[in-house]
Amino acid sequence: MLPQRARAMLRRLVPRQPLRLFQWQAACARGASVQRRTWASMIPRPLGPWGAVGNSPPVCRRSSSTPASGPEVALTQERYPVKRLPFSTPSEADLAAFERIIPGRVVTDTEVLAASNVDWLRTVRGCSRVLLRPRTSEEVAHILRYCHERNLAVNPQGGNTGMVGGSVPVFDEIILSTALMNQVISFHSVSGTLVCQAGCILEELSQYVEARGFVMPLDLGAKGSCHIGGNVATNAGGLRFLRYGSLHGTVLGLEVVLADGTVLNCLSTLRKDNTGYDLKQLFIGSEGTLGVITAVSIQCPPKPQAVNVAFLGCPGFAEVLQTFSTCKGLLGEILSAYEFMDAECMWLVRHHLHLTSPVQESPFYVLIETSGSRAEHDAEKLNDFLEQALRSGLVTDGTVATDQMKLKALWALRERISEALSRDGYVYKYDLSLPTDTLYDLVTDLRARLGSQAKRVVGYGHLGDGNLHLNVTSEDFSRSLLDALEPYVYEWTAGQRGSVSAEHGLGFKKKDALHYSKPPAALRLMQQLKALLDPKGILNPYKTLPAQA
Amino acid sequence: MLPQRARAMLRRLVPRQPLRLFQWQAACARGASVQRRTWASMIPRPLGPWGAVGNSPPVCRRSSSTPASGPEVALTQERYPVKRLPFSTPSEADLAAFERIIPGRVVTDTEVLAASNVDWLRTVRGCSRVLLRPRTSEEVAHILRYCHERNLAVNPQGGNTGMVGGSVPVFDEIILSTALMNQVISFHSVSGTLVCQAGCILEELSQYVEARGFVMPLDLGAKGSCHIGGNVATNAGGLRFLRYGSLHGTVLGLEVVLADGTVLNCLSTLRKDNTGYDLKQLFIGSEGTLGVITAVSIQCPPKPQAVNVAFLGCPGFAEVLQTFSTCKGLLGEILSAYEFMDAECMWLVRHHLHLTSPVQESPFYVLIETSGSRAEHDAEKLNDFLEQALRSGLVTDGTVATDQMKLKALWALRERISEALSRDGYVYKYDLSLPTDTLYDLVTDLRARLGSQAKRVVGYGHLGDGNLHLNVTSEDFSRSLLDALEPYVYEWTAGQRGSVSAEHGLGFKKKDALHYSKPPAALRLMQQLKALLDPKGILNPYKTLPAQA
Repeated sequence: MLPQRARAMLRRLVPRQPLRLFQWQAACARGASVQRRTWASMIPRPLGPWGAVGNSPPVCRRSSSTPASGPEVALTQERYPVKRLPFSTPSEADLAAFERIIPGRVVTDTEVLAASNVDWLRTVRGCSRVLLRPRTSEEVAHILRYCHERNLAVNPQGGNTGMVGGSVPVFDEIILSTALMNQVISFHSVSGTLVCQAGCILEELSQYVEARGFVMPLDLGAKGSCHIGGNVATNAGGLRFLRYGSLHGTVLGLEVVLADGTVLNCLSTLRKDNTGYDLKQLFIGSEGTLGVITAVSIQCPPKPQAVNVAFLGCPGFAEVLQTFSTCKGLLGEILSAYEFMDAECMWLVRHHLHLTSPVQESPFYVLIETSGSRAEHDAEKLNDFLEQALRSGLVTDGTVATDQMKLKALWALRERISEALSRDGYVYKYDLSLPTDTLYDLVTDLRARLGSQAKRVVGYGHLGDGNLHLNVTSEDFSRSLLDALEPYVYEWTAGQRGSVSAEHGLGFKKKDALHYSKPPAALRLMQQLKALLDPKGILNPYKTLPAQA
Repeated sequence: MLPQRARAMLRRLVPRQPLRLFQWQAACARGASVQRRTWASMIPRPLGPWGAVGNSPPVCRRSSSTPASGPEVALTQERYPVKRLPFSTPSEADLAAFERIIPGRVVTDTEVLAASNVDWLRTVRGCSRVLLRPRTSEEVAHILRYCHERNLAVNPQGGNTGMVGGSVPVFDEIILSTALMNQVISFHSVSGTLVCQAGCILEELSQYVEARGFVMPLDLGAKGSCHIGGNVATNAGGLRFLRYGSLHGTVLGLEVVLADGTVLNCLSTLRKDNTGYDLKQLFIGSEGTLGVITAVSIQCPPKPQAVNVAFLGCPGFAEVLQTFSTCKGLLGEILSAYEFMDAECMWLVRHHLHLTSPVQESPFYVLIETSGSRAEHDAEKLNDFLEQALRSGLVTDGTVATDQMKLKALWALRERISEALSRDGYVYKYDLSLPTDTLYDLVTDLRARLGSQAKRVVGYGHLGDGNLHLNVTSEDFSRSLLDALEPYVYEWTAGQRGSVSAEHGLGFKKKDALHYSKPPAALRLMQQLKALLDPKGILNPYKTLPAQA
């Protein structure tokens, strides 16, 4: 016999078929719609002739213009101990050469460059003086062949939504933007194979394939700005990983331009191809350091006929874990996401973004998504799961949504945490893979360790994949707080045999932590691969791999 | 209104819940149980001291002993134009050194070697005089360090079930068998992560994880003999690819010993890890030419609560395709296999293996498997699909199985085609990825082209993945038939932008066809990777990549 309160909740939670949204508070829907990230897509159209460059010294000076909002971000070279490598400095002659390759798309306007020199977290800043906007892989090849010959360093840039400083220059690297490489090349309406240029924005691709009965196999908070090429280059994980797996499995082919300008066309549309080494895999997750991805072929799964989202409150982390086990068993193949966030995260999205929680205050919240081919079957499975979760006290409150707008509003609570954090102050971000059963211990541990040094210590993430996003905020960047966090967080993670970067990559900010998750022999082989594919080291230097002794 | 015949069939096919097997013919169950392949697991325990080796010339002579059955297979070096590379020849001193590394596990008995020198298709044969059976990765490292120093060529061998001559020596390469590396290292009962040595037999791993509520993400006809290390080294596809995807997505980590004996430990158990380049991907599908896989970490999905298999007869290939579209829509996420075979395949398994068809004779047969978490939901979906397929005339006859024994019997009709073919004569095997809508055209085309030159031309395969197994048989190996097939089949495939090896790899027999599916720049990079990882070329020489000019 269920206690009376639980029974009352079940009435609210477990509707008759078809599922309807219960206990929905109007205020939530008002504030929670998913917004496009706009801070990274502000680059205006090319502005014509460039200003004076080329004769100035390679070490940058503070720019007088600042990015769109907030105080000026410290230059990376001033905040971090990093030395410029002996690349050439772009000269007037170089700019003229680029102008011949991509007429009218060589950008030197300082306002435009300001936005492309700083990451969206506003934690690192380069001082590049030129941004190139090619439209085709041939143009990319031509540019790289030129840069290779001239020993010019290049920073490939997609939507500039990365979390680890991988997408902006460290010094004056030439920014090679994929923004104009935004064409769908082909889509096969039976198999769901999409082939497109690297600069297509993920959300636009999603809309494109959804109109044709498919979905993209990945989804992430930055979808409104991030480019598919950047997603692949960073092996983005995101919200659908639990269901559709890694890009190493869903990407069918890539076109990549190598450091010397060679075009490597492995843009296969075949699901299976065992002819020789699977070269495309090398570039998935290599963060633009081995080649520039110019086109992607990706397998899109059929669009589910029914999607449900349940947003639940849990009394403790043990219950979050047990709810996961229960729902894996009862939802089986229709489970498509299992996300969690702690009470601090809820505070952040309520306070900074004015979203409203649709459930009672709880120590933890869980977002469960199901995607299936038959609404009534899915509803029955979900109802059975919710009934059991409530009956056993794993869940204390909850709400379920099926219609598109309310689904999005529930998702926004989880997806916009990162945005809320960035409004809380300077953010120290850690993206860790850990054994699920001890996944939250580090958050508790750090809160005790840091005390009032930190403004906030929060934990959320893709629990279904063992992926914790640990975030610490302070009013401003603080070296002493950073020292309290690192290498402590990395050592803690290594002690659990976890990964110091589950899905964000290493970029500039995490590259020196690589050895916490990989042995020396692996590191050596990575350096050898880099030397083989980019002997002059011009592609995204200072990123991914630690500087060689 | 359905025609009367279709209505009668529906009564047979679409049972009330729970599903039962209809129209099952007792004779089928009798002959069709899945048998372990035994021809590749005949190697007896080590036999002690070796015979005379080392002073004989490197080019082999015909062996007086023959493998287990059938006439002696021609030596590869006699049948194909291939030249031995200048590796050292194993000497008495080398054997003594190996004996110190793995005492009692250095095999030189000619009977044992005969079985390991020939592939199971009995199409290629090497003349190695020594087989090593290490138990640990340290022993493999020690062996490879020694071979690297001594310039001795090594042929890594798993279950020796490959289709392209990749698993046996071409000349006198030392056979490095993973047969004794057959221990499960760990299994996580919540996440389903299995870590095991490379020599574990796939079927035994399946039983191991199934007893714990999970399944292996791959399954194939050779499961009774093939090793998981060989599966990963060849990027095996198989029968569950449609549902669980490629090993590039499901393999979480690998331990690999490099050519010089370096142990590369990337044996992560994490679902997500973006720290540096994903090195393990290099070795998946590289057929032992870049390193020897010694242990595998793999993500096992939960065991489905309900499995159904439908075996259907289709009047034409157009109906096979349309049945696939229909079942993708109606079965959605529970569809776990969509296989097809033509009438010639059915003749082969009936004639050579004495299996009985459970349905009326048809030009084509389709095997559909569903795997789901709730029997009654799955049955309802399957019934709706079958009703629609019959009503629209896509399917003319069919049977459905739910219990384990009968499921296996239906699967055997499809899984044992390869075995039946090998009893039909010499088999020319092609494993192609092609656009599904024109996938069978090549079979029809070849039948007309070859006429009486061929004994049989058959087509079957993983239609859901666009993967055709095209097989041609003749009484004995015939050079003129081979010339009629190649490069014709490859050119036809390249014309469709297909792959000349979907899942079998290139091994020895297909390596020169690589350029039909990959451009010169890709080939060049593969050669560079080989040179980087195995500068002396001692690992599985003469395989995967064409000989360099």
